[in-house]
Amino acid sequence: MNISVLGCGRWGAFIAWYVCGLNHKVTLWGRENSKALAELKETRKNQFLTLQDEMNLTSSLDEAISFGEYIVISISAQQLRALAKQINEYNVEGKTFILCMKGIESTTGKRLTQVFREEVGYKCNLAIWVGPGHVQDFVAGIPNCMVIGSDNIEVTKKIADELSSDLIRFYYGQDLIGNEIGAAAKNVIGIAAGMLDGVGYGSLKGALMARGAREVSKLVRAMGGNELTAYGLSHLGDYEATLFSSHSNNRQFGEDFVKKNKFSKLAEGVSTAKALQLLSKTYNVDLPICNAINSIIGEEQEPKEILGNLFGRTRKFEF
Amino acid sequence: MNISVLGCGRWGAFIAWYVCGLNHKVTLWGRENSKALAELKETRKNQFLTLQDEMNLTSSLDEAISFGEYIVISISAQQLRALAKQINEYNVEGKTFILCMKGIESTTGKRLTQVFREEVGYKCNLAIWVGPGHVQDFVAGIPNCMVIGSDNIEVTKKIADELSSDLIRFYYGQDLIGNEIGAAAKNVIGIAAGMLDGVGYGSLKGALMARGAREVSKLVRAMGGNELTAYGLSHLGDYEATLFSSHSNNRQFGEDFVKKNKFSKLAEGVSTAKALQLLSKTYNVDLPICNAINSIIGEEQEPKEILGNLFGRTRKFEF
Repeated sequence: MNISVLGCGRWGAFIAWYVCGLNHKVTLWGRENSKALAELKETRKNQFLTLQDEMNLTSSLDEAISFGEYIVISISAQQLRALAKQINEYNVEGKTFILCMKGIESTTGKRLTQVFREEVGYKCNLAIWVGPGHVQDFVAGIPNCMVIGSDNIEVTKKIADELSSDLIRFYYGQDLIGNEIGAAAKNVIGIAAGMLDGVGYGSLKGALMARGAREVSKLVRAMGGNELTAYGLSHLGDYEATLFSSHSNNRQFGEDFVKKNKFSKLAEGVSTAKALQLLSKTYNVDLPICNAINSIIGEEQEPKEILGNLFGRTRKFEF
Repeated sequence: MNISVLGCGRWGAFIAWYVCGLNHKVTLWGRENSKALAELKETRKNQFLTLQDEMNLTSSLDEAISFGEYIVISISAQQLRALAKQINEYNVEGKTFILCMKGIESTTGKRLTQVFREEVGYKCNLAIWVGPGHVQDFVAGIPNCMVIGSDNIEVTKKIADELSSDLIRFYYGQDLIGNEIGAAAKNVIGIAAGMLDGVGYGSLKGALMARGAREVSKLVRAMGGNELTAYGLSHLGDYEATLFSSHSNNRQFGEDFVKKNKFSKLAEGVSTAKALQLLSKTYNVDLPICNAINSIIGEEQEPKEILGNLFGRTRKFEF
């Protein structure tokens, strides 16, 4: 099968390498001015992996879109709308787009499939690819479980069956709302975990897991999803990779933030935390952990105090 | 209030130290031949903490039981029935027993409150104290959240209100079945986590969390509890302390087992895994992770193969 991957950062390059290894024909696209693409073109590798010789690299969106039957998108979540507008200028009828990214549009609170459908409409198939896993582990041959989801179970099954391997074992997702919100929100819980590590309260990450998944599950239910989805691979299943791993950008950002260390850029969870605050109001669901993260990042309150107060200063029922 | 603690191992000594610090009068009991008691009597300390001068140490069960209005029990779970038989020889009317231990009777699959009630009956109050926390962290002043549960909400509230502090924040448990099964089963998931670490599959601990909590939640529901309880503090909330901490005996046991390192004694999770296999049959609930642990410990199968196969070799629906 012909597969295009749009986005050549850490994840995009990995996905291209992964599906190429499954003997699909692959085109990897990056923007004209992308440093990552320039590096890949020159050296055929990045800090994690070496691209197969037969993989095609391009900065032509036209070429990438006309090439792929499956088109995987892996870019910064907040840039999806702009890219989708461009995509809509091409003929994409019958193609299958797969969003392999975790976020919510921060200005609107919209899920990424909503953003994509608003710009491109329903003339193509659309799925998501979420769940745990670090590029560093996959390239070392350490397997993980991930989720493919869409609003069409036949599309979900076809993608999962085409792209499964011993390295990535796919489950079929059945709750697009829960999987998208869960996948995005885990980055916020990851920032909270890093903040707990940073103030020396790492042992509260257990309570963070239980209370964090709980508030996300309440939001998912209020939005019309299945509350159990928050306890599946896309959210809880991604906690190991996000709350405990040294590879996690969001966890590291949280730790650096409270220690007042320099950080190179804002983590995706920062935008997601803002988006979740919008959704919290829209759906009238209290999200205390998410709100705490927003307050700390907005520098309205001392991290240690607000984090210390987050878990059960007053005695109450658990559910 | 007068509080007795039965059991002077790591947890028993900590609980005695903790409630003594809340200005309760405390008697700490150990068996006549207990090395831990002899050491505490001689030095007033163990490797973690120093007991307050005013705390009474005794090997007289009569003395400990008549002294305490609250009597906390913290011994090896498989020894509870024998101790409960002894307790039943004393007058315990109106007293409140609190089981601060995690296990299931391996020969019967019975929960610890069931075991206690079978031997002592209903003439006293009975509660459980479960949830995350390591002695090492608590004595360093790092707070955590725990759960008090019983079949009488007034008893639950009274205990939680008496024993809460800035160090231990109690939630009121409302599902004795779920909290007891969850607290015990987390040790089995902890052994599984250690085995994954031992074979180099640590990144699968994310999938282990999602799938482990899921199988426990199904069992809890089949037994008449609330399936969400598995996602609360007593089970999922204890994963940080059990799956990721170097202080966890169960995690360490799992790692040592697959690496064929010596281990000093079987972890509590080994008995619990046997008990869960009984419950799996009784309630007709499939527990693949628990069964895998039993197979590996019974040396019926190679750890790496069985662990590698555990998560999604065949594609399927997540819930």
